[in-house]
Amino acid sequence: MLFQVEMTVKLPPDMPAERAAEIKATEKAYAQDLQRAGKWRHLWRVAGSYANVSIFDVEDNAELQELVGNLPLFPYMEIRVTPLCRHPSSIREDDA
Amino acid sequence: MLFQVEMTVKLPPDMPAERAAEIKATEKAYAQDLQRAGKWRHLWRVAGSYANVSIFDVEDNAELQELVGNLPLFPYMEIRVTPLCRHPSSIREDDA
Amino acid sequence: MLFQVEMTVKLPPDMPAERAAEIKATEKAYAQDLQRAGKWRHLWRVAGSYANVSIFDVEDNAELQELVGNLPLFPYMEIRVTPLCRHPSSIREDDA
Amino acid sequence: MLFQVEMTVKLPPDMPAERAAEIKATEKAYAQDLQRAGKWRHLWRVAGSYANVSIFDVEDNAELQELVGNLPLFPYMEIRVTPLCRHPSSIREDDA
Amino acid sequence: MLFQVEMTVKLPPDMPAERAAEIKATEKAYAQDLQRAGKWRHLWRVAGSYANVSIFDVEDNAELQELVGNLPLFPYMEIRVTPLCRHPSSIREDDA
Amino acid sequence: MLFQVEMTVKLPPDMPAERAAEIKATEKAYAQDLQRAGKWRHLWRVAGSYANVSIFDVEDNAELQELVGNLPLFPYMEIRVTPLCRHPSSIREDDA
Amino acid sequence: MLFQVEMTVKLPPDMPAERAAEIKATEKAYAQDLQRAGKWRHLWRVAGSYANVSIFDVEDNAELQELVGNLPLFPYMEIRVTPLCRHPSSIREDDA
Amino acid sequence: MLFQVEMTVKLPPDMPAERAAEIKATEKAYAQDLQRAGKWRHLWRVAGSYANVSIFDVEDNAELQELVGNLPLFPYMEIRVTPLCRHPSSIREDDA
Amino acid sequence: MLFQVEMTVKLPPDMPAERAAEIKATEKAYAQDLQRAGKWRHLWRVAGSYANVSIFDVEDNAELQELVGNLPLFPYMEIRVTPLCRHPSSIREDDA
Amino acid sequence: MLFQVEMTVKLPPDMPAERAAEIKATEKAYAQDLQRAGKWRHLWRVAGSYANVSIFDVEDNAELQELVGNLPLFPYMEIRVTPLCRHPSSIREDDA
Repeated sequence: MLFQVEMTVKLPPDMPAERAAEIKATEKAYAQDLQRAGKWRHLWRVAGSYANVSIFDVEDNAELQELVGNLPLFPYMEIRVTPLCRHPSSIREDDA
Repeated sequence: MLFQVEMTVKLPPDMPAERAAEIKATEKAYAQDLQRAGKWRHLWRVAGSYANVSIFDVEDNAELQELVGNLPLFPYMEIRVTPLCRHPSSIREDDA
Repeated sequence: MLFQVEMTVKLPPDMPAERAAEIKATEKAYAQDLQRAGKWRHLWRVAGSYANVSIFDVEDNAELQELVGNLPLFPYMEIRVTPLCRHPSSIREDDA
Repeated sequence: MLFQVEMTVKLPPDMPAERAAEIKATEKAYAQDLQRAGKWRHLWRVAGSYANVSIFDVEDNAELQELVGNLPLFPYMEIRVTPLCRHPSSIREDDA
Repeated sequence: MLFQVEMTVKLPPDMPAERAAEIKATEKAYAQDLQRAGKWRHLWRVAGSYANVSIFDVEDNAELQELVGNLPLFPYMEIRVTPLCRHPSSIREDDA
Repeated sequence: MLFQVEMTVKLPPDMPAERAAEIKATEKAYAQDLQRAGKWRHLWRVAGSYANVSIFDVEDNAELQELVGNLPLFPYMEIRVTPLCRHPSSIREDDA
Repeated sequence: MLFQVEMTVKLPPDMPAERAAEIKATEKAYAQDLQRAGKWRHLWRVAGSYANVSIFDVEDNAELQELVGNLPLFPYMEIRVTPLCRHPSSIREDDA
Repeated sequence: MLFQVEMTVKLPPDMPAERAAEIKATEKAYAQDLQRAGKWRHLWRVAGSYANVSIFDVEDNAELQELVGNLPLFPYMEIRVTPLCRHPSSIREDDA
Repeated sequence: MLFQVEMTVKLPPDMPAERAAEIKATEKAYAQDLQRAGKWRHLWRVAGSYANVSIFDVEDNAELQELVGNLPLFPYMEIRVTPLCRHPSSIREDDA
Repeated sequence: MLFQVEMTVKLPPDMPAERAAEIKATEKAYAQDLQRAGKWRHLWRVAGSYANVSIFDVEDNAELQELVGNLPLFPYMEIRVTPLCRHPSSIREDDA
């Protein structure tokens, strides 16, 4: 089951650079694990921003909450979630 | 080059049903042609709405305008365009 | 799987009264069928408005789209969908 | 008398972790007491967020203010209150 | 129990003048009946607008819905409802 | 001359508790003085919030500015002012 | 007593040209009468729009309502009212 | 003197196609005249929309109003005007 | 050439009182100099707020930027600029 | 390929003056380099603000992200990106 997840990162301006680097490294590893597991299907940078557009493929709402809520950057992001399903005009079998 | 395109359809309430059906059929054929051509990469229905989330793969902004501006439903849609690029944490080669 | 669905009805001011009554009657029957089927778990009127707050219990996003998209009033409503899951502080077993 | 209460938690990024944990524990106990007392009827997590959707069952507006205003997280939440009442299409006797 | 109700009237520009006058006359009689019954406690015009700020005194949310939903102008108004209760700094006994 | 004034309090999360208590006590005394003087006609808590809805009765805009601008909590509030006047359907002589 | 009044004109696209011309002519005469009477102190066009910024000088809120509510274009305008008073840094005696 | 002008076209859905074509042809001629006269410096289509971003070079606000207010599509556009001036980091002499 | 400038002051809550008083005194002197020079034509307090509505009379956009950008409170204000010109219904020669 | 980029600078009020001056100097050098390279085609100050309107000319979305994301002021700016293309009424060959 697919969800569009849009994340905008807002780090506090006074966060020490090392702390920020640490969180970002953990976030990257976590994101790549979820991609390899097939849970985080797509991950794009929004050009000209510190934001991304993502497509998650999860069992249900609870799994979405678990995956998103555990993002290392979760406390520093504005997140918009949109539930998706197959479009009647889609020709792709796996876009649902 | 990828763009996220979010479209919300707002048909005038007094449009005759046959006219609406006609436009939608043309739209469907057009959307499936663009998908087969590789230009309209993903097309999802937003659950609980008359809206979709799409990913377009185009040469440049001009081609995006040409493809979107020729949608049969174009005069009846609110459209939000977001330019995308490869995310440094993405593990997919083709997500750019 | 639960979704909060908020619906605000905006009938065109020039819709004939009989047509409006007809749609509302069909909507009511449809809503009560879904309630009896356990799909539409809660349905509340927002006091002082022509709007409701609802809780749907569906298999997945696709079923939500099917149920909501077939509402007789669907073309005349503004709809906001929010995916829900169990809250760690909830004491109810069935609120998920 | 029912109210929908939507709460979004925004903890200050510089709040010490122990202080945050303490408030959250008190909040959880408080929320479970109110649920057992029948005052906090439903409590759902909004998937992909640090927010909840709740249904309160209170005597009047004053009791709603007392219960919500005493939430340990109250100073750190954005709260939207919606008064509810029985919907004419509802088939449940207790949804009012 | 008190509610603040803010109403903004938006009549369709093509409503015949006699029809508009008829609705407004019915609305006025209805509003004055509710004032005399003690249900519509205050009714003020917002200066420079076709809007009002009102204070309703009702038994519960259901009565608010009944009174507001039966306003002759109800289909032509944007309405914002705010539940009120006694303020700890108020010196008036009846402001709750 | 009447004004609706809606105030939402946003204290900085790091304000010391004693300082906050001090300001609130001064605010309460100030609010009660103005109520006794007939300047602050109504003061209601918005249920489920740290906000109030008030009705001020002043000589002119300048007096409104003087009374509101001297509120001890003034630097910590979002304030919305709406000028009111007698509504043609009002039956109260003093609601203007 | 001064008020800033911002008016944006939104004529229905199907209003006959003669009807629009008629209303605009009446509006112009009305606006010039009020300017000569000293009630409509300033009237500026917002460059690049069908909108104006105005300063009214009235006895009280009730007179503002009377003057603005009787504008021939009143049913076709979005209006924003802001109460003004003397600024402590102003050097003009009559700007209040 | 430069202004950024953003225009979004919203033609009424029931405007006859010939009438729309006529207005658009007049608009195009008018736009090209102003470009040749050096008044309309830049004109870009916003990709994926029926909107443009423009840069006008005018004598003053009054000339901007005259040029924009006479656009054949003026009654059917939402317009946002932003006054521009030379940026201290610009290296172009004519960007002011 | 006239511009409406609306300024809302948002001082950081932790700015020392002496620093705030110092900036405000400099701001006042600066504002009065510009008023005497005929550049800052009108300056009104928005009643019930820490905001003002101003009318500037400048040579061009660049001068507006220079005057506004040098306000001592500039870093602490939200500012909305609206270009004005003579209204065809105005009877004042100098309102342009 | 052209993009409109609108940037609003929001420096933290407690950033030391030397640090701010340093970032601004680096930003200026960077902006002038990109202008000389033909990547940053236009750069205008929005009059009365700490904001700019810019036109970038890049190969693709990825280059836009690289250039904008490396702005020294990037962490302190709100940025709005709009993809542009040739307008059918434009008479300039290079505005695409």
